[in-house]
Amino acid sequence: MSGYDVMELGGLDTWLQAGGDRPGKQFVDKEIPTEFIGVSANAATPGGESGYWHAHSKLEEVYVFLAGRGQMAVGDDVVDVQAGTVVRVGQDVMRAWRALPDSHEDLRWLCIRSGGEALKAIGRDGALDKERPYPWAE
Amino acid sequence: MSGYDVMELGGLDTWLQAGGDRPGKQFVDKEIPTEFIGVSANAATPGGESGYWHAHSKLEEVYVFLAGRGQMAVGDDVVDVQAGTVVRVGQDVMRAWRALPDSHEDLRWLCIRSGGEALKAIGRDGALDKERPYPWAE
Repeated sequence: MSGYDVMELGGLDTWLQAGGDRPGKQFVDKEIPTEFIGVSANAATPGGESGYWHAHSKLEEVYVFLAGRGQMAVGDDVVDVQAGTVVRVGQDVMRAWRALPDSHEDLRWLCIRSGGEALKAIGRDGALDKERPYPWAE
Repeated sequence: MSGYDVMELGGLDTWLQAGGDRPGKQFVDKEIPTEFIGVSANAATPGGESGYWHAHSKLEEVYVFLAGRGQMAVGDDVVDVQAGTVVRVGQDVMRAWRALPDSHEDLRWLCIRSGGEALKAIGRDGALDKERPYPWAE
């Protein structure tokens, strides 16, 4: 798929309000027709959590954190994240995230996904776990 | 490739000094073994330019600009970029970039690449053009 496309996410400080029916989450690949690369721009207020764990059977994901302080739960581990932290998560690994309650800034990050085929060929490969407790739960 | 990996790029304000023998450019996929997703973190001072045009025969690239003001040359077009601008560039399209000379901040962006196979299988698919003038050249 040749050619090029352009869209505007808005500056990082606007991401929390953006996202239409899912504030704090904008999908680049819903706005412009990417072939292989999925990207979402994400923001969460301090204390905010992912809401559930999820995994992908085909997609690799790379999370690039850009502001704020948070944690990612990856399998049985917890990774502290801040501006500049990059977390790659492979297939079939459950993950969740939170912005630390005492983060001085909103947590902001890009989530990049790709899986060795066109995104359309991969389709929905996600698995959710809405029952598993977070490791930071009291 | 399952499991997960973590690395630290440093905060955006440190990207210009980072990058080893190529300051201003850090490759995530040189630090951690990603399977499908290539990512570089980039920074350039106002007036800085890409040095040459390039294209890829297999890879799609998505540029996510995070700070500063600049321009991308994409084929025969010029796209103004700022924090939040996303530019997808398809296969075989020549591209170049510059930070505007009057940008009040360094230009900072992520360049994401992926191509429908493992990155190792794709290998080097780039073509450079070091002779083609930039559209913003005087």
